[in-house]
Amino acid sequence: MGTRIGNRTLQFEKPIAIRSWATVAGRKEGQGKLGRQYDFVIEHNQFGEKSWERAEQKMQQYALELALEKAHLYGHQLDYFLGGDLLNQIVATSYTARALGAPYFGLYGACSSLAESMILGSCLLDGGFGRLAAVCTSSHHDAAERQLRYPTEMGVQRTLSAQWTVTGSGAYILDQGHGSWQITQAVPGKIVDRGISNSSDMGSAMAAAAVDTISTWLADTGGLHQLDYIVTGDLGKIGYEICKNELTAQGYDIAGKYFDCGMQVYHEEDQDVHAGGSGCGCSAVVLGAKYLPMMAEKQHCRLLLVGTGALLSPLTVQQGETIPGIAHGVLIEYRQEGL
Amino acid sequence: MGTRIGNRTLQFEKPIAIRSWATVAGRKEGQGKLGRQYDFVIEHNQFGEKSWERAEQKMQQYALELALEKAHLYGHQLDYFLGGDLLNQIVATSYTARALGAPYFGLYGACSSLAESMILGSCLLDGGFGRLAAVCTSSHHDAAERQLRYPTEMGVQRTLSAQWTVTGSGAYILDQGHGSWQITQAVPGKIVDRGISNSSDMGSAMAAAAVDTISTWLADTGGLHQLDYIVTGDLGKIGYEICKNELTAQGYDIAGKYFDCGMQVYHEEDQDVHAGGSGCGCSAVVLGAKYLPMMAEKQHCRLLLVGTGALLSPLTVQQGETIPGIAHGVLIEYRQEGL
Repeated sequence: MGTRIGNRTLQFEKPIAIRSWATVAGRKEGQGKLGRQYDFVIEHNQFGEKSWERAEQKMQQYALELALEKAHLYGHQLDYFLGGDLLNQIVATSYTARALGAPYFGLYGACSSLAESMILGSCLLDGGFGRLAAVCTSSHHDAAERQLRYPTEMGVQRTLSAQWTVTGSGAYILDQGHGSWQITQAVPGKIVDRGISNSSDMGSAMAAAAVDTISTWLADTGGLHQLDYIVTGDLGKIGYEICKNELTAQGYDIAGKYFDCGMQVYHEEDQDVHAGGSGCGCSAVVLGAKYLPMMAEKQHCRLLLVGTGALLSPLTVQQGETIPGIAHGVLIEYRQEGL
Repeated sequence: MGTRIGNRTLQFEKPIAIRSWATVAGRKEGQGKLGRQYDFVIEHNQFGEKSWERAEQKMQQYALELALEKAHLYGHQLDYFLGGDLLNQIVATSYTARALGAPYFGLYGACSSLAESMILGSCLLDGGFGRLAAVCTSSHHDAAERQLRYPTEMGVQRTLSAQWTVTGSGAYILDQGHGSWQITQAVPGKIVDRGISNSSDMGSAMAAAAVDTISTWLADTGGLHQLDYIVTGDLGKIGYEICKNELTAQGYDIAGKYFDCGMQVYHEEDQDVHAGGSGCGCSAVVLGAKYLPMMAEKQHCRLLLVGTGALLSPLTVQQGETIPGIAHGVLIEYRQEGL
């Protein structure tokens, strides 16, 4: 049974292990900074399917199957499947759930969906409602682009503040039991809206929510000195600077600890992605391909993953609404076996 | 801390009360069967706003404010807000979350979103992660129609199997404590897909999922004789018949106990809604306006709410996919005070 620390940090009582994970990335992502670290890179963004949307679903399913295989599990052993994506009606995730056959909770937190799924999955396991949960999210550049902005083939010129939706999917198996990687705390996000309505500058819109969640965790736990990494989901270069500056101004010395997944996917100099990567797949692939393995380089390592989401729709933007941001925090701890 | 019964029924250990609720309905719904039982009926489907989408969000916010007022609570006292709607990127719910300021989990289960929210909200409270959660869902006929089918003003002729998306919103305050109405068990839904691809016949597509969830609960608990009502979300006339016949064929005598919210909203003879009502708002308004008050006519009453969702998107339908159905079950018990 969980307890609460301070204002809104949740402390899990039972051990919740991240038992295995897998990442599948697109071709452009495969040519990026983490190219060799993904479990699988698809050769072509259609992944042998008739449409980008089907390709996205297939990536999810493949990531999930790989993660299950690494954990020596079958889909029918899962008590829950939680996840979401950027497609309308989160169809990639729902069709994956159909293939999987496990009890399913569809979520929508835009690009914060991975962290949101991890929080709710951990709460279900800690609350005694099951033993095994899979969480999975994805995004696909071409499918997202035509749905959320312009027809992909138009190749509209992008502003410098725009981010590039990551083609990729990450799946994680949560296990109520001990393991090297454990989810120990969480901070459910609140919406923060600073009145930004430019949908080509989502980093700025989400940064304030990230600041709110990170500073809430820091104040609730006083845990900055024990923390090795703070990793936001997809603020990109512009949002990252805002978030870093605001936390520093609040007196938190995060120098050398704070990173953003959106800045880890592409080569800045030659991949032309402007402010960085974004999308539900961004933190999903970077956490698994980069940060979880990196944590194992230390004997004991603590990482605060802060999934960031911009909860707009193309329609509300056209109707003149501003962009609500949200950030869900998950504390992951690594301990070498025997410690 | 929760426990599990049988295959996949969850039993909550702590008392989870439905402390208050409120319903807001559209004009056509106000002229329907439950017209006098809604807390508020809007005069015009734009509800004084510039767009149907904003009107939907305003209905949600109004329902939530009414429910909070009935419970003598303020929004900032809530530990969680969970919900979803049919608009792309569930924007009605996200803007309500912005106005509310509580920690927010956005969900998407199509028309099963109310039951999905109630399950996850109950798990959070039972798991010790908080004391108060609000759940709220909505749909708006005109906004849903133009997004999911054809431009609303076209007035396309509808097939007889089509259902009418309910304009309405229902909000419920869950309280970890004793109360007359309690959520005591839940059955998380699995996806069932029988290969139906006609998006004008969602009742048939969802019926199989409802049968799966109801028969799972019946088998897990053996509780049919203690059950007063089984209420599905929005199968409509056609789905209702399928569900009733299949449960009967499985040997369950549900005669006189089984009802569908989609058949309770409109007058069949003169409101021209064909197979009945549907949408995230359908079970949300019927549960609050009809069934929860009706339960109080008995000393002790048990109702299984089965929220039903069709997890398609207009795009996947165009791409030739079939419709995955899901049904989330929630057991609600009423006991007269002092019993």
